[in-house]
Amino acid sequence: MIDFSCDYNCGCAPEILAALTCANGAQHATYGFDSYSAAAKEKIRAAIGNPGADVYFLVGGTQTNATVLSSILAPWEGVLSAASGHIAVHEAGAVEATGHKVLTLEADAYGKLSPGTIASWLESFFADGTHPHMVRPGAVYLSHPTEYGGLYTAAELRVIRALCDEYGLRLFLDGARLAYVLAARGTDVDLPLLGELCDVFYIGGTKCGALCGEAVVFRRPQPCFFPAHKQRGALLAKGYLLGLQFDALFTDDLYLRLGAQAIDCAMALREGLRARGVSFFPESNSNQQFPVLTAEQLAKLKGRIGFEVWRSFPDGSALVRLCTSWRTTKAEVEAVFAALDS
Amino acid sequence: MIDFSCDYNCGCAPEILAALTCANGAQHATYGFDSYSAAAKEKIRAAIGNPGADVYFLVGGTQTNATVLSSILAPWEGVLSAASGHIAVHEAGAVEATGHKVLTLEADAYGKLSPGTIASWLESFFADGTHPHMVRPGAVYLSHPTEYGGLYTAAELRVIRALCDEYGLRLFLDGARLAYVLAARGTDVDLPLLGELCDVFYIGGTKCGALCGEAVVFRRPQPCFFPAHKQRGALLAKGYLLGLQFDALFTDDLYLRLGAQAIDCAMALREGLRARGVSFFPESNSNQQFPVLTAEQLAKLKGRIGFEVWRSFPDGSALVRLCTSWRTTKAEVEAVFAALDS
Amino acid sequence: MIDFSCDYNCGCAPEILAALTCANGAQHATYGFDSYSAAAKEKIRAAIGNPGADVYFLVGGTQTNATVLSSILAPWEGVLSAASGHIAVHEAGAVEATGHKVLTLEADAYGKLSPGTIASWLESFFADGTHPHMVRPGAVYLSHPTEYGGLYTAAELRVIRALCDEYGLRLFLDGARLAYVLAARGTDVDLPLLGELCDVFYIGGTKCGALCGEAVVFRRPQPCFFPAHKQRGALLAKGYLLGLQFDALFTDDLYLRLGAQAIDCAMALREGLRARGVSFFPESNSNQQFPVLTAEQLAKLKGRIGFEVWRSFPDGSALVRLCTSWRTTKAEVEAVFAALDS
Amino acid sequence: MIDFSCDYNCGCAPEILAALTCANGAQHATYGFDSYSAAAKEKIRAAIGNPGADVYFLVGGTQTNATVLSSILAPWEGVLSAASGHIAVHEAGAVEATGHKVLTLEADAYGKLSPGTIASWLESFFADGTHPHMVRPGAVYLSHPTEYGGLYTAAELRVIRALCDEYGLRLFLDGARLAYVLAARGTDVDLPLLGELCDVFYIGGTKCGALCGEAVVFRRPQPCFFPAHKQRGALLAKGYLLGLQFDALFTDDLYLRLGAQAIDCAMALREGLRARGVSFFPESNSNQQFPVLTAEQLAKLKGRIGFEVWRSFPDGSALVRLCTSWRTTKAEVEAVFAALDS
Repeated sequence: MIDFSCDYNCGCAPEILAALTCANGAQHATYGFDSYSAAAKEKIRAAIGNPGADVYFLVGGTQTNATVLSSILAPWEGVLSAASGHIAVHEAGAVEATGHKVLTLEADAYGKLSPGTIASWLESFFADGTHPHMVRPGAVYLSHPTEYGGLYTAAELRVIRALCDEYGLRLFLDGARLAYVLAARGTDVDLPLLGELCDVFYIGGTKCGALCGEAVVFRRPQPCFFPAHKQRGALLAKGYLLGLQFDALFTDDLYLRLGAQAIDCAMALREGLRARGVSFFPESNSNQQFPVLTAEQLAKLKGRIGFEVWRSFPDGSALVRLCTSWRTTKAEVEAVFAALDS
Repeated sequence: MIDFSCDYNCGCAPEILAALTCANGAQHATYGFDSYSAAAKEKIRAAIGNPGADVYFLVGGTQTNATVLSSILAPWEGVLSAASGHIAVHEAGAVEATGHKVLTLEADAYGKLSPGTIASWLESFFADGTHPHMVRPGAVYLSHPTEYGGLYTAAELRVIRALCDEYGLRLFLDGARLAYVLAARGTDVDLPLLGELCDVFYIGGTKCGALCGEAVVFRRPQPCFFPAHKQRGALLAKGYLLGLQFDALFTDDLYLRLGAQAIDCAMALREGLRARGVSFFPESNSNQQFPVLTAEQLAKLKGRIGFEVWRSFPDGSALVRLCTSWRTTKAEVEAVFAALDS
Repeated sequence: MIDFSCDYNCGCAPEILAALTCANGAQHATYGFDSYSAAAKEKIRAAIGNPGADVYFLVGGTQTNATVLSSILAPWEGVLSAASGHIAVHEAGAVEATGHKVLTLEADAYGKLSPGTIASWLESFFADGTHPHMVRPGAVYLSHPTEYGGLYTAAELRVIRALCDEYGLRLFLDGARLAYVLAARGTDVDLPLLGELCDVFYIGGTKCGALCGEAVVFRRPQPCFFPAHKQRGALLAKGYLLGLQFDALFTDDLYLRLGAQAIDCAMALREGLRARGVSFFPESNSNQQFPVLTAEQLAKLKGRIGFEVWRSFPDGSALVRLCTSWRTTKAEVEAVFAALDS
Repeated sequence: MIDFSCDYNCGCAPEILAALTCANGAQHATYGFDSYSAAAKEKIRAAIGNPGADVYFLVGGTQTNATVLSSILAPWEGVLSAASGHIAVHEAGAVEATGHKVLTLEADAYGKLSPGTIASWLESFFADGTHPHMVRPGAVYLSHPTEYGGLYTAAELRVIRALCDEYGLRLFLDGARLAYVLAARGTDVDLPLLGELCDVFYIGGTKCGALCGEAVVFRRPQPCFFPAHKQRGALLAKGYLLGLQFDALFTDDLYLRLGAQAIDCAMALREGLRARGVSFFPESNSNQQFPVLTAEQLAKLKGRIGFEVWRSFPDGSALVRLCTSWRTTKAEVEAVFAALDS
């Protein structure tokens, strides 16, 4: 079965496996002080265009979200998130376990927090005379792309940054699938922009070609993040394992190329499905596609193509998610069409 | 330079690298529901001789200690540990960050908590009329081997287990270096015994031949550990990465063989140093050796052999730590001697 | 100015002040082991009809909510609450600060969580295959009366109890204004029923005639609550201060009489306002009344009668809250009418 | 029986009871915004001589310690304390429950942390290359007087302050028994000095003449402490209850007079015991006296005088604690002598 059900169910790009193999025989400095990590940090700083950025490598997304947020929030502060945001729904309360409330706002159909929604929430909050008895907003959490494949525009991010400045909030962007965003058609968001606008964001590895790992980028030096991530169990003893992977990902544009492969396949998938009359909800320019398939179509895919059902409808149709990834091939996309046309 | 400074500065056993390479092309069920993890759990249960044991794979030691302890302690409970224990000293307050106090007891010269020390502490605690105002002991934390290479005997562990039963405590054993314990000369502690006596313990991978990973073994089914470790950011999305490694480690006794290699080298190192008149403090049967070297000896090793200085003395001598590991060779041990004899 | 703005802005019932004065010269056992506390606990157990109930006295509401919830939830569990519930909105994240998520459900117009809402939420939660990655519900939090003066019926509470049993949840009822509920017209909820249905609830003192204090009642012995509330800073050194107050409140039905006074005044207020054509949103049988007053009416009250504005409308009218309390007099109610009729 | 067993087992000074009685009939602004609190804060600022100090009123000591510390420490920071300090021993892990480790140092015989001990601990800590893996010290906690009646000198406090400045630590002083310190013979520590040297300290009410309450004084404005203490359940709804008490305590030097009464009695007690050949361990200038009584003396006191036994010796003698308080009379002290002489 060809599996489009998620983008974190396979290993890593061949370049990374080769580097791992090559490094396996040697001894490396521990806790992120190895030469691979140093090189990877340098390459990431260069890609962002900010030589003063501080970079740390963590293992996974939930760990990263909770560790970063707990390090940038005061105890009485919470984080604004889309109600459908990963930290609000699918992290088993990891942020709350560090003592912070996730303050949820309604997202749009694409899972995005609109600047207007944030602005009016903040305005209402501070207009409410009882707000000192409420959880003070300390940060905005965005995922880019969102859980529904939504992409922020540069203009939207600039307005959100301005709101953060106005109200004294930090801006944190979850880039678990960032490779696919950077390669998306028509996006005007790139790494330098994120490095400029976000107090902290991360470049996802786990879902974007690495075995595992997320590169956390702080706009300014953040030396206290060392004990902070050690304390949360997020400091890998063999830090070279993560540094090596990001070193490979940021060599010869591998990260961008892996993202482009997934997006090319996702766009081909979208075109082919559209040509077969399929509608999408929502439309997505990311590697995640959300077609609504008829009962008949679902039956044809069954057992041949793996996907996730997100919502079932009374007539037997369903909203499903098909994920491409850096390792998806055009042939696999064609296999979807073949199944539907059979 | 031949580096004996620690046992987590290199990659993994060739068998594991081969398995990783082999699995890289395929898609695997996520979050530990893959076939490798299932096989590894089965093999571990068999090695322990407890078909009802519940096994989870986590990434690293600090993460494992904090995640396990916070899942088995009530909010008002703390954990008893040697004052020199890893959770008490070198985890940046990870246990406290989950809300629990580490209650420290003086260890012996080998870093061990003697049953007598535990017994008299517990007796004193409950004899103190103010104890309801104090942190109630909820678990005993042992590391085996200890930070100083100390090994518990089966008899000691049985007494500690009995104390836990008497006072309603859970017994948790940190086996980050367990491979080296299982292979130690003269030990009567094996996996079935740990599975019988500990409420929960872990089988270290990071320091014992894996790239990373610790196998947490609960004596009884512990379904709530799934959300518990997800919440602490300790659930790896690509769980197969860990399952695969433990599957390899528990195939054809690889784990025991890797341990034996380290111990053989450590014993050879000890013999050779002894033959050169070196004393040890403390004596260790584990892969960590703690010789006291003279200023002259230190000078000879400098630049040729890597090691950690644990304490410097006024006369220029020092207590140092030399770690062997699964990948140490007899030739490397000979190189130490050659340096000393030069 | 006659102040109806809240029910916790004055001292205590004369009987309590007399008792405090009387006890002031003597020495009392500390930490709740005094004779007043013992007597108060006995009287509360008798009022509930459960000799096995365990009673603790805490100082205030937010402290009680966070302390109780953190003592009955597993780390990975959250608490279901109305989105408008006090713990969800106005406690500055006290529950989250103990590591637990408040899972919010939409309440009805009275601020009540309907059994149907809870049931369908639970059904959906467990039907969602990804729920092990979500915060597991561990308890239901109800406030009775709600923030909007809503009262649960015995039948509703029984259904919610049955849901808790079905899904393994604990039921916790916040009775900060319980005196006013017990005296409400037409209610069929009394102390024995709460003692039967709730795993734990509290009998509010602060808002119901005491200087301060909340009596927490566990259905079953809960010895661990002693260290639990000590740890949260919620154990009063001079416990007799709280015991004495509840001893007085549960002597000669003082608690019920104080509640009845507030309700009598609230009902008189409601009738008088109704007679003047005022509508309420929502209708309330509690001591909190929520009339919608016209701009003209608001102007007439201004400077004479204190109240809280909850929502202002474009035409100058407003939804306001008028609170009666145990010390409100009929003359004060008449003063509202006089102001409106002036 | 005349009870010298502790200093928090009775009510409040008559002046406070009178003020409470007087205020009982009126309505007061809530949450500390009442006129009593405003007046009390003004008087405390004047007593300290720092018009910019920020003052908050909390209910009890454990609550205050945990709330203050959690508001001034970063997540990865701990607090230095004497191993015998209240936060380290008798607060059921309240500080750890907020996520912070209590880093314990050996105190001297008086329970004091010597500046030298602090200095050498800090020097060793930062000299240890592994310190980024350890809990970083963020504050120093002193209790004045200590658990053993020890008093810091102005010179000692100045050195500790200098150490805090040198290492970037905050200085927090627990003044639960501060009235007794201010009145101690020969002390050169007064309120202005504490206000100058401590980032934050508190003026104890519970043990020093109030029903309950501690006045927390920050050297500089600390607006975030409002949500911080609300979040920890430490904001009293009827804040006037605390403000009123401190208003009374800081009117006409009541606080100092209450302290002096206790100290006069303690000194008389000490002299009388000394005259009877009793030795003390340690010597104390505070309201707590620690005589070592013979078996015969203990027998004579039994049933007549209440006290706490801190340590029993094989020969039947014991180290006991006798506490005087603001309400102790010379006649009560004489009663001790009469019992011993009987």
